[in-house]
Amino acid sequence: MLVELSEELRELIGTRVERVSPEDYPMGDAAGFLRKYVVPSRPAVFRGAVERERWRTSPWANAEYLEERVGDCEVTVAFTPDGYADALVHDKGSGREVFAQPFERTMKFAEFLAALKGREDGGGVPYLSAQNSSLSSELPALLEDCGVDVPFATEAFGSPPEAVNIWIGDERSVTTMHRDHYENLYFVVTGIKTFMLLPPTDSFRLGMRSAPAARYDRGLKLDVEDPLRLVRWCPIYPNSPPSAYGPGPPPMQVTVRAGEALYLPAMWLHAVSQASDEDGHPCIAINYWYGMDMCHTYPYVSFCEKLTRVV
Amino acid sequence: MLVELSEELRELIGTRVERVSPEDYPMGDAAGFLRKYVVPSRPAVFRGAVERERWRTSPWANAEYLEERVGDCEVTVAFTPDGYADALVHDKGSGREVFAQPFERTMKFAEFLAALKGREDGGGVPYLSAQNSSLSSELPALLEDCGVDVPFATEAFGSPPEAVNIWIGDERSVTTMHRDHYENLYFVVTGIKTFMLLPPTDSFRLGMRSAPAARYDRGLKLDVEDPLRLVRWCPIYPNSPPSAYGPGPPPMQVTVRAGEALYLPAMWLHAVSQASDEDGHPCIAINYWYGMDMCHTYPYVSFCEKLTRVV
Repeated sequence: MLVELSEELRELIGTRVERVSPEDYPMGDAAGFLRKYVVPSRPAVFRGAVERERWRTSPWANAEYLEERVGDCEVTVAFTPDGYADALVHDKGSGREVFAQPFERTMKFAEFLAALKGREDGGGVPYLSAQNSSLSSELPALLEDCGVDVPFATEAFGSPPEAVNIWIGDERSVTTMHRDHYENLYFVVTGIKTFMLLPPTDSFRLGMRSAPAARYDRGLKLDVEDPLRLVRWCPIYPNSPPSAYGPGPPPMQVTVRAGEALYLPAMWLHAVSQASDEDGHPCIAINYWYGMDMCHTYPYVSFCEKLTRVV
Repeated sequence: MLVELSEELRELIGTRVERVSPEDYPMGDAAGFLRKYVVPSRPAVFRGAVERERWRTSPWANAEYLEERVGDCEVTVAFTPDGYADALVHDKGSGREVFAQPFERTMKFAEFLAALKGREDGGGVPYLSAQNSSLSSELPALLEDCGVDVPFATEAFGSPPEAVNIWIGDERSVTTMHRDHYENLYFVVTGIKTFMLLPPTDSFRLGMRSAPAARYDRGLKLDVEDPLRLVRWCPIYPNSPPSAYGPGPPPMQVTVRAGEALYLPAMWLHAVSQASDEDGHPCIAINYWYGMDMCHTYPYVSFCEKLTRVV
């Protein structure tokens, strides 16, 4: 039955993510953006978004530029042995599955860039991925190059973004399938991000299960939290095979390239991988999280989940 | 379980219909209208809407004005013995419940006004309630007094209305609980309309049942259609007692007075009653039906209904 709902939703929103060309980009057309994408809760990639928003982020591909601008800023960096943070992993120490959280270290931005480049030094995989509005709070000078908001989205959602995050990493780091209670505009500045997307209704297919929360220590060994805390999470990664998903339509795969922006509607499930660009620059992305007074699909999604647990 | 969904929706959209005062009216603010009302599928009454839209409909209260303007136009009028058209009624002739459709007569508009006034002539209850875009198709001259569209809504929904209907009747005529697959802006020009509203999820509570389709003949006797055609309909009227509804929050009752407009989101269930004004003028209303590329709650609503039939 939930599979039918899942299929019916695809009839409404399609089975592929629309790639909107610059001339159709709803810049300055908040009503069009709301009507076409927000109302039906339909993701889309806006090509040429960075250029249309007149960002001055092209020098970011140049590490020296970034170091000069913000090299001394303190940033929060997530370290894991393998790039899997906030993920269900098998802990060799305890012999069981745990929900692994990264070791978080505060360091100068220049040091982070060096750690990301110095792949062979055994210090684990660094990923600038804090979601504490990291761009505004840790690297505010860079906001001058992009913007404190996305004007057409601020008009559409009726208030400025609640958080602006910056993400810098390479192909070693992935994000496991999860969802956020925010409307999301996700801009790729350098490199490539690949998203595996499922609509909010589809959480029943993901084999969610609970595991004890654990965190990597400085030596990248896992410590299970004491007292024990169970986290319900999804065992699906961006590179999981189709068989990892329960019955239903396949996830939508969408690649977001440098200069493009993804609109990811609130509550959509997403797993993310990334790649450096051909010159070896890491992947840099910025996302704007907009709150909404109300997420209009929430009651339905919540209802479907209750059904899953009962059935 | 569906009751919980019904309750949760009330937490999102509230238990009463918002009455928006003129200074907060989203005229010219299509994005605000979409964000506040369309996205969450939340009805609202816009006070002073007729004035804000600069309609010149105030002379409509005067039957002579209407007769002079459009008295010779041919209109389609629905006649019933009791004001219950498109309703489940007990047919004395066959001794069973049928779905009663009105006797439809084409007549001059001036004759209709006379029939509506001449209550005691035994000709049944006339109601100008055809939904064939009746204002544009039968009384187009009156569009000069109101408008072919509602500009802010046309901008919000991205295209002009698919139908503009005019409704003229008195307190004898009611509309039974049903829903339309259109976004609806419903303006009251004279008199009062009272709506009983339920969100689209709540159809499980309405005791829907099937009955043979029948139609009143010229003598206002019911003829069951031959061949037999079953219609699934809801036995709830605007004045049905609370016990007529299945378990769940009470319907939202909202009164729309002369000069006001109701935004009724697509798929919302509604039953309608009306009253003449204090000077005895009939109730006149105009509604704009806007299509949407996609009704965003449709898959969920459809899913809930499948559940109802299975459980």
